[in-house]
Amino acid sequence: MVASEGAQPGGLAVRVTADASSRRVRLDLAYDGAAFFGAQVQSGRRTVGSELSVALERVTGRAIPVTFAGRTDRGVHADGQVAHGDVASPLPDERLLKALNAVLPTDLAIWRLQTVHGAFHARYDARWREYRYQVWNAPVRHPALARQVWHIVRSLDPVALDAATARLLGEHDFAAFAGQGLGVPGRVQVRSTVRAVHAVRWLVRTPAHPDSAGRVLEFRIRANGFLPQMVRTIVGAAIEVGSGKRTPEWFESVLRRRNRALAPAPAPPQGLSLWRVGYAGCDQPSAVGAILADGQAGGTTDEQAES
Amino acid sequence: MVASEGAQPGGLAVRVTADASSRRVRLDLAYDGAAFFGAQVQSGRRTVGSELSVALERVTGRAIPVTFAGRTDRGVHADGQVAHGDVASPLPDERLLKALNAVLPTDLAIWRLQTVHGAFHARYDARWREYRYQVWNAPVRHPALARQVWHIVRSLDPVALDAATARLLGEHDFAAFAGQGLGVPGRVQVRSTVRAVHAVRWLVRTPAHPDSAGRVLEFRIRANGFLPQMVRTIVGAAIEVGSGKRTPEWFESVLRRRNRALAPAPAPPQGLSLWRVGYAGCDQPSAVGAILADGQAGGTTDEQAES
Repeated sequence: MVASEGAQPGGLAVRVTADASSRRVRLDLAYDGAAFFGAQVQSGRRTVGSELSVALERVTGRAIPVTFAGRTDRGVHADGQVAHGDVASPLPDERLLKALNAVLPTDLAIWRLQTVHGAFHARYDARWREYRYQVWNAPVRHPALARQVWHIVRSLDPVALDAATARLLGEHDFAAFAGQGLGVPGRVQVRSTVRAVHAVRWLVRTPAHPDSAGRVLEFRIRANGFLPQMVRTIVGAAIEVGSGKRTPEWFESVLRRRNRALAPAPAPPQGLSLWRVGYAGCDQPSAVGAILADGQAGGTTDEQAES
Repeated sequence: MVASEGAQPGGLAVRVTADASSRRVRLDLAYDGAAFFGAQVQSGRRTVGSELSVALERVTGRAIPVTFAGRTDRGVHADGQVAHGDVASPLPDERLLKALNAVLPTDLAIWRLQTVHGAFHARYDARWREYRYQVWNAPVRHPALARQVWHIVRSLDPVALDAATARLLGEHDFAAFAGQGLGVPGRVQVRSTVRAVHAVRWLVRTPAHPDSAGRVLEFRIRANGFLPQMVRTIVGAAIEVGSGKRTPEWFESVLRRRNRALAPAPAPPQGLSLWRVGYAGCDQPSAVGAILADGQAGGTTDEQAES
């Protein structure tokens, strides 16, 4: 299924699907990233993309490539990943959803499947992405949460965490927090490292068990796009401030100097989840709005969003 | 380390530890049951007891048997399991706790270790146990919750669930919900199947993700003791009522007839956790009191508590 450029009556060039008998579907996905080598298809490795492709082939007879709103690294989870693909299937949306979930592995689920217009693009049409990072701050690890948190023993101050990450709001050059060599000074950068952060927030959650001597510190960040390992590197640096080792001013100076070498190692992948992706015309539910104050409707970027 | 009967000056027979150089410790444990063949030591199998024994041997030089407040079956979790053992170690409690957690596997943690009087017995001294069972009620499975819930697609009515399980309150013969042949009519029962339920409650919890078309239905039950598979069989029967297939009166009649054959199969193990164990003199924190209305301080039973 090849996407090609076409011309509408109005003369506006849009991407259309090549095969008239197929339709474009948007998939909203959740997965436990522990056993995946990330989202994107990689030869010989188990990825979200390869499992989706196998399921689509079993249900529709054809292995269809899917395009994701954002990359997720090996071990990173998703609650609200979005993908699109062009399927040729007589099944209506609801039955196609059930058929796919019936053959997908248990660590991957499509929780919504909708037929969309043929020009919908999960990555390019995304206006914002929101990530969640969870820290278990307690003297002892938490076996039930272990797969979804970074366990930190030393005491963390949520006010200091907030003071650090509040500096990220607005448009900045995030080279200091970029992986894959993007933040190395002096290198010729083909890709911009400027992104606009709409909202950041740390939430303190007490686990249900009354004797738990610990709490979950949950970081949320929404931006128009993300650089490789950006969220995990931000969290790694914020934790230095939260534990009192560094100041919020240090955090800001790292950001300003745009040098990846000044920030610490990224936080481990299992704490991270691609939480939500926003599209024009899709209202963000009030629940997220309430949590994240209110991200101003920022501009989008065509670049790859990943973390 | 052999426990023997002794006589105190007052003439009261108590269990004392045989070795004066050792001390009795109470361990409060949490574990992810997925990779354990239950709590009790079984030859050649990975159990919570065998992992604890290995850790105690590495830290104290001796493989010490531990006694649990309640058995947990293969695949059943614990948030508040309690155990005791007699350790000979010069380390104070806090350092012993750290040393043990450092060598225990990641799916098992001791979150509290306290030296207790030599007559403390994790099983016999327990006044009540509380279990939690979690159901994910939604059209699509939830990868992040999959290891800790029973996924039920058909819609469940929390009011009907409550109406069914409210019949369990008070002292009853629970043979209808007992595994291991205890509920087979006509058999000579060496063990009583009478237990006193102090509190039951269904909680409806909406997951954090705003687009989740589903909810967690959480069952809590507190009793002086439990029969094998009792909680899981109760949940299996309650779900029949919650889905509208059966009535609360049917549920009550199953209880009254004391015949295991009348109740459905037990709910799967991964939804269950031994949530909390109560002891005389240990106040139950208000959080649990609030959740469970208030279990009247019921009598205890010397029998094995398990589920």
